[in-house]
Amino acid sequence: MKNIVLIGSGNLAEALAEAICRCEGIELRQIFGRNAARVAELSARTGIPGCTDPAHLAAADLYLLAVSDAAIPQLAASLPFGEGAAVVHTAGGIGLEALPERIARRGVLYPLQTFTQGRQVDFSRIPLFVEGSDDSFAGELEQLARRLSRTVARADSTRRAQLHLAAVFACNFVNHLYAVGAEVLRGADLPFETLAPLIEETAAKAIASGDPARMQTGPAVRGDLTTQQHHRRLLAARPDLERIYETLSEHIWQTSRKTS
Amino acid sequence: MKNIVLIGSGNLAEALAEAICRCEGIELRQIFGRNAARVAELSARTGIPGCTDPAHLAAADLYLLAVSDAAIPQLAASLPFGEGAAVVHTAGGIGLEALPERIARRGVLYPLQTFTQGRQVDFSRIPLFVEGSDDSFAGELEQLARRLSRTVARADSTRRAQLHLAAVFACNFVNHLYAVGAEVLRGADLPFETLAPLIEETAAKAIASGDPARMQTGPAVRGDLTTQQHHRRLLAARPDLERIYETLSEHIWQTSRKTS
Repeated sequence: MKNIVLIGSGNLAEALAEAICRCEGIELRQIFGRNAARVAELSARTGIPGCTDPAHLAAADLYLLAVSDAAIPQLAASLPFGEGAAVVHTAGGIGLEALPERIARRGVLYPLQTFTQGRQVDFSRIPLFVEGSDDSFAGELEQLARRLSRTVARADSTRRAQLHLAAVFACNFVNHLYAVGAEVLRGADLPFETLAPLIEETAAKAIASGDPARMQTGPAVRGDLTTQQHHRRLLAARPDLERIYETLSEHIWQTSRKTS
Repeated sequence: MKNIVLIGSGNLAEALAEAICRCEGIELRQIFGRNAARVAELSARTGIPGCTDPAHLAAADLYLLAVSDAAIPQLAASLPFGEGAAVVHTAGGIGLEALPERIARRGVLYPLQTFTQGRQVDFSRIPLFVEGSDDSFAGELEQLARRLSRTVARADSTRRAQLHLAAVFACNFVNHLYAVGAEVLRGADLPFETLAPLIEETAAKAIASGDPARMQTGPAVRGDLTTQQHHRRLLAARPDLERIYETLSEHIWQTSRKTS
């Protein structure tokens, strides 16, 4: 797989375009997308030709779909891929079967990371998980992935769904708790940045320990009911936040009793 | 307040001892604690005399209690503090009134950080919140705090309780979600470190944005019910985790609808 067409112009497409451009021996032939302004922007930044018209989709060994989950089936079914080309999507929560069976070589290349416009990430540190419609193609995809990242593993659609679910807990839900923390701080007239050293240290020590359950602190794991009652009184006007408080405190207490 | 006796020998006491020792013009006279082995260890590391016998508690301008929440009232009531000495505790969730009124100058110095044995933290970056039994003492404590950290603010017991509650959401509960993510990953036979780049980036982008609610991603904020149903099926054997999933997904969806 020496040449690639990238389909999509969002944050993941941007990160992939930059990572592929840095790989020697792999040619990024074209960036195809429906958002003309974003395609032009990515094309200008990377020097790769942009395209918005399916009739002018370039020929390539591999079409890499970095588009929203919902757009995968329709794009994969409608784009005029060349005969024998491989088509790969990049979604954690979407099975291989979202790609039509008439495409002989189908696959998935899932980067376990969150991508934000304007934020650079070190692609070589992102774990990449690959799946192929046959073992030989999976091997080829794995080789490609190893040129983009130091951490590559195979994961079928079931295993990838577990990974995606773990990411929802450790990324999406964590970010929401940051947002709740920010809201509580606003009630004390303090900016979110007050929490920055605590947030950084909490992440760093969980990672350094390799076992966050062992690093659990706070009133719930201590069984400190006095503090918990005080917190519930502070949340009396916010039953929605109290429900989150109760659910997580109870689970921390139950699981700490099981493991200790 | 030129000289201090530190009471306690846990992780916070260790960080405070090291930070005070680095301050010129402030003398750390003694480290007092009930755990003889830990007191000896801190004493050896810092070169400050250790003490475990209340009868030999040194005279000082300020006694700084870095002990567990539950130990504060009993220690503050029983230790033979010198006449006119100031006594300050360091707990986020405990009011000033935990210190007996017969101590004329009472206060709180609350560092918004999580402390772990063996992990160095940059004390100068930790937000410190001070409260005093009178305005003049609060001012003295504030001056002391400014020598230890670049971020110092006053917070009475009510405001400090809000801060402590925000920290429970953004630190204790976040760490528990890391633990849940680790557990889900174990189900896919992958180590927790797989999530490290994602965890680091989630924290970094929330902090850089200053507004984590605006950075929310994932199936809940997208209203992607197909993925959510898939995740709930994966959690069918774990109603405890499904409850956390439901509670947080529903709250993300409700709050995103309010703010967007």
